[in-house]
Amino acid sequence: MKAGSVALTLGIAGVVLGTAIASCAGAHSGSPIGQPASAADPAARSLAPTTTARPASGALTSDEGMWLLNDFPSERLRERYGFAPTKEWLDHVRLSSVRLTLGCSGSVVSPDGLVMTNHHCAEECIAQLSTSKKDFVQSGFFAKSEKDEVKCPDIEANQLIEIVDVTARVNEATKGSSGAAYNDAQRAEISRIEKECTTTEEVRCDVVSLYHGGLYHLYKYRRMQDVRLVFAPEIGIAAFGGDPDNFMFPRYDLDVSFLRLYDHDHPVKTNEYFRWSKAGAKQGELTFISGHPGSTSRELTVSQLEYFRDVRLPAALVLLAFYRGILIEFGARGPEQKRTSNSTLLDFENNLKATKGRHEALLDRELFARKIAEEQELRAKVAADPRKAKLYGGAWDAIAAAERTMKRIRKPYQLLELGRGFSSSLFETARTLVRSGDELPKANEKRLREYVDSKLPALKQGLFSSAPVYDEFETLMLTTSLGQLREDLGPDDPVVKKVLGKQSPAELAQAVIKGTKLKDVKVRKALFDGGKAAVDASKDPMILLALLVDPDARNIRKRYEDEVEAVVKQQGELIAKAKFEIYGTSVYPDATFSLRVSFGQVKGWNENGTEVEPFTTLAGAFARDTGREPFALPKRWLAAKSRLNLETPFNFTTTNDLIGGNSGSPMINKEAEIVGLIFDGNIHSLGGEYAYDPRENRAVAVHSASLKEALDKVYGAARILSEIQP
Amino acid sequence: MKAGSVALTLGIAGVVLGTAIASCAGAHSGSPIGQPASAADPAARSLAPTTTARPASGALTSDEGMWLLNDFPSERLRERYGFAPTKEWLDHVRLSSVRLTLGCSGSVVSPDGLVMTNHHCAEECIAQLSTSKKDFVQSGFFAKSEKDEVKCPDIEANQLIEIVDVTARVNEATKGSSGAAYNDAQRAEISRIEKECTTTEEVRCDVVSLYHGGLYHLYKYRRMQDVRLVFAPEIGIAAFGGDPDNFMFPRYDLDVSFLRLYDHDHPVKTNEYFRWSKAGAKQGELTFISGHPGSTSRELTVSQLEYFRDVRLPAALVLLAFYRGILIEFGARGPEQKRTSNSTLLDFENNLKATKGRHEALLDRELFARKIAEEQELRAKVAADPRKAKLYGGAWDAIAAAERTMKRIRKPYQLLELGRGFSSSLFETARTLVRSGDELPKANEKRLREYVDSKLPALKQGLFSSAPVYDEFETLMLTTSLGQLREDLGPDDPVVKKVLGKQSPAELAQAVIKGTKLKDVKVRKALFDGGKAAVDASKDPMILLALLVDPDARNIRKRYEDEVEAVVKQQGELIAKAKFEIYGTSVYPDATFSLRVSFGQVKGWNENGTEVEPFTTLAGAFARDTGREPFALPKRWLAAKSRLNLETPFNFTTTNDLIGGNSGSPMINKEAEIVGLIFDGNIHSLGGEYAYDPRENRAVAVHSASLKEALDKVYGAARILSEIQP
Repeated sequence: MKAGSVALTLGIAGVVLGTAIASCAGAHSGSPIGQPASAADPAARSLAPTTTARPASGALTSDEGMWLLNDFPSERLRERYGFAPTKEWLDHVRLSSVRLTLGCSGSVVSPDGLVMTNHHCAEECIAQLSTSKKDFVQSGFFAKSEKDEVKCPDIEANQLIEIVDVTARVNEATKGSSGAAYNDAQRAEISRIEKECTTTEEVRCDVVSLYHGGLYHLYKYRRMQDVRLVFAPEIGIAAFGGDPDNFMFPRYDLDVSFLRLYDHDHPVKTNEYFRWSKAGAKQGELTFISGHPGSTSRELTVSQLEYFRDVRLPAALVLLAFYRGILIEFGARGPEQKRTSNSTLLDFENNLKATKGRHEALLDRELFARKIAEEQELRAKVAADPRKAKLYGGAWDAIAAAERTMKRIRKPYQLLELGRGFSSSLFETARTLVRSGDELPKANEKRLREYVDSKLPALKQGLFSSAPVYDEFETLMLTTSLGQLREDLGPDDPVVKKVLGKQSPAELAQAVIKGTKLKDVKVRKALFDGGKAAVDASKDPMILLALLVDPDARNIRKRYEDEVEAVVKQQGELIAKAKFEIYGTSVYPDATFSLRVSFGQVKGWNENGTEVEPFTTLAGAFARDTGREPFALPKRWLAAKSRLNLETPFNFTTTNDLIGGNSGSPMINKEAEIVGLIFDGNIHSLGGEYAYDPRENRAVAVHSASLKEALDKVYGAARILSEIQP
Repeated sequence: MKAGSVALTLGIAGVVLGTAIASCAGAHSGSPIGQPASAADPAARSLAPTTTARPASGALTSDEGMWLLNDFPSERLRERYGFAPTKEWLDHVRLSSVRLTLGCSGSVVSPDGLVMTNHHCAEECIAQLSTSKKDFVQSGFFAKSEKDEVKCPDIEANQLIEIVDVTARVNEATKGSSGAAYNDAQRAEISRIEKECTTTEEVRCDVVSLYHGGLYHLYKYRRMQDVRLVFAPEIGIAAFGGDPDNFMFPRYDLDVSFLRLYDHDHPVKTNEYFRWSKAGAKQGELTFISGHPGSTSRELTVSQLEYFRDVRLPAALVLLAFYRGILIEFGARGPEQKRTSNSTLLDFENNLKATKGRHEALLDRELFARKIAEEQELRAKVAADPRKAKLYGGAWDAIAAAERTMKRIRKPYQLLELGRGFSSSLFETARTLVRSGDELPKANEKRLREYVDSKLPALKQGLFSSAPVYDEFETLMLTTSLGQLREDLGPDDPVVKKVLGKQSPAELAQAVIKGTKLKDVKVRKALFDGGKAAVDASKDPMILLALLVDPDARNIRKRYEDEVEAVVKQQGELIAKAKFEIYGTSVYPDATFSLRVSFGQVKGWNENGTEVEPFTTLAGAFARDTGREPFALPKRWLAAKSRLNLETPFNFTTTNDLIGGNSGSPMINKEAEIVGLIFDGNIHSLGGEYAYDPRENRAVAVHSASLKEALDKVYGAARILSEIQP
């Protein structure tokens, strides 16, 4: 579904545009705590049968839910499917799952740390390892032996070790404060909690806000930054059908890649890994997915949804479509331009399609009327009880006022602080250096949240990444985004005048990209190690640009944090408490890019009166081949056709609830064996941002049988096959 | 404002995308009768003081209104401004005004047929007359003598000679019919009326539907197809500030061009022309604009507005932004690519900005609530009277049902029939030839509306135009639009499969553009003259493509006409009648690209607490000059600076009500003297699509004094000066 690798990663040039689904509460940090949070699911009280999660009162009536592993509805699952996962089962699943911090999920599938995820989750790495002479995105990659496995510059994998409830501690810290003080107190306490937990650089600790502030859980991970590429097929089969088929079904994609976890230059050894199912998934079979759904907005208030529907999503559509046009035409200039920009184009196309789907979901009047009715019901219950009315009654209006503020500051906030006016990875590097110089000397709990000690390993991985930087592409993106800066703020805006002077966006972009030395990792290291003094003494034009803009960016960020984020978080906590009191707590929280398990079954759906079968076969891919991108099967496939069992199931759909970030999630059966690999949702799943519709919402996976068939007959990848089915 | 030249022209490659503001009722024909129509202005019964047109009850409370010349509120104007235009005054204004059929307005300003309009209204012609060696768009154009004046390939000018009410005749023809029969009967009758009126090719007759079917007026024009370019400044000053400044104020644009009307190779002599004001417009002065506002949606029902807000405008935003990106990056390839695509880019940028403004207006909850309240009030009044309830009560629900149908057929209708899947002027030519072969042998009243006899002169002007066609640009547009076709209908759609086969969009586009001979006007003439037999025998690949798609295009058009258009028109007539009965008739109808006069005064506005002064000066342009596009003053201007009176008023704002199509309208005083030249509205005027807000809605014009100052001191255009101020 790709949204995983886009919508959930922030702070990278271009990719910052992909934040359409992240809520305003955390859109700039990329930190889980930055995610919005709220309380019990109003869908549980749905007025219509289409969104029936687990009602507080009883039986499961659909497969809705992205469930916490430490609050899993096992008994209810037994009622519905006759199977109740045990704690041991859940622990095994948790320890066999990994989060890929660029925004995806994955699973360990061998005792030697082999990780299976999607091709599109590793595509950035595959592109980074490619050169103009050898393009692994086009030709695929297969390390014949362990020594041929190559480190991915920017991939970090996390294995979830422990979950601790820290709600009381966080609440105690913010007691009695509001606005900026509330925010500062909470940030400081979370920084302390995370720092105490982060005993070594090989541990990652994130405080996760669940139910929009109803609970705060500390997630402790094993952090693995040495992740190497083992296998990737050609993009021609990984993304067969390209953008036209994205979010569609029937589908014919081998969207897989294999990575390996390393520790001190040796493969990570483990007993916690998923075995391979012999049979694979069958029609109607119970299936689980274990992964990291990035963000949902099912708990948001009506005013927040209105902001998305009327302001943020329309603006995102225009921006994404514009960049899509720019990138397509840039790629048409020549093969090298195509190679260096294609990964970004795919992200934008994926995000555009997903944003369209979300926007259409919010424009669905039935859905929106249900959201309004649910909120009105809750507010009426709150208003009917004087104690609740006093404690919680003002929360909705306060959030609505914050959303109005957000509407006013949206443009400068996105352009200056989220970097949409400066979409260049080199600018991002420069800003990180500038801010590192300013922030790191401060006490840990006083820093901007992405500079606290517990975040430094991730920050350094990005900052010192060996990923290649392409001047022409950087110039394109910076030129375009500076144009957006001038367009959105107006040519008379003081920041615009300060930044551009008399230069055109293209002139400025060319000058700073050509002049900067930040492409050299050694230069970055020297500036980072030299701290503020070195940064201030630098004459590097990109550093100068970042320094020039930083006061304005910090100002608007402060306004956002104090006047919007703090209000939304604090009032969100109140709404969460009201929901807990009124509806109970046995529902799942909105997605937060933390580990969840969803359940469902292999099933098609009815599309405008036509039954969509849940399976495709390898034969279908050959029938669909036109020889032209994006419907061109790779040569290896054409050559292997006669060897393949064409009736092998290729892709399939299930009712599992999922969202962007679940890309790469293992699809397992009740024996916790791999039966498939999640890579997409159908077009209706996009509305799952706001509500799960059991009639149409479907997950899309690669079938385990076709994975084996292809590894064997197309790629001759015996080394991998022997690992996953010893 | 450019919307004139975009939103109102149809059927030209790319430009078909610009139909965002045209209502669905007439989006494909470009014929005035195709425009939506409806009855008395609900704004007249506005619940808020912001949209107070002429209430049926009495005094004018704002300058709202685009008034018919044969129903002008002179007496009420006397009450408000102490001046009542006489019939002679109105006749003189009418005969001195011209409509430019590509979508603009203009005025005759000399006894020798000199016409003043905007640069952006003639820009397509200026580009067509340019070559890679001599780019008049960049360098400007000035015919030193009459013999240097050059014919514009595609411009037709119309002078309004007569207006006749034909309501009774049209109503009689459709009496008792509905659906397709209603539509066919009406079209046939209108074709008859227009044909009877069109006595020679130098007469143009259009039946205009006013008040969305409340009245049908026959507009009889003198048709002039020999229109020659006399003068155009550099685009650098005509559109100084470019897209960033479009719809903005303060402003510094010399957006003017001069054309000349010819008849049998001689300039048209006339006594009906606007004299030049000595003083120009002053603060607070009463001003009129006489022009052709293209289309407003002030009378649409709530379900129609919802369709615009939730379906059509969001889709248009995505499409326009996407093409904008494509075109910007295409233009960046080199100067020739820029030259051949820039005019289209400007159209798209203008239309994108305008569509954003309209969408934001519809998202304004206060405005939309008012629209709902107005409709509810009217429906309640209808429901309260059994006779009215029986006659009119079902109209709103019927239109809502038609809008739901429209939502379902929107994509294939736009792609196949409106040509968005085939954005190529050569495809458009091929389709016109294919359809001419099919349609012209039929009886006049049985033809598709754009092939009836009264439309043939315009059709031939386009078909046999000498305008250059650029293969690379055509290929770009066709490739992109074929990609849209596949994206929107899906790769498995039968039409998509039929069109593309195994080819990619780029392959097909390259093949047909390279292979077609339709660039040659002689080939077009031969196929047109040869009729169906010649077309069917043709092996031209573009003709074959048009033939391949035409059955599908006609099918979806028929569905649209029978199930949407016919319903909207017939039910719109009923609503118009109900409004006439309940609120009276003394209000203005929605804009229909027919001649209107609006009145107002020179006035700034208050922008978020800051007063915006209504005038800029020439000095401001020099202060804003950065030397870089789009803020680069032309060399001629820099050289002339010392000679110019820099205090000369340059641009100014008035309260006149206007919309796209008014581009090029003369701004006149009560002596009917030129005091300015309309070229834009401010950003708030975009909401004027739905309602006029007297607090903020402003017209933007070039001041008459700066026109003279520039012609004299920058361009040394004594020949023009002596004509306009003899």
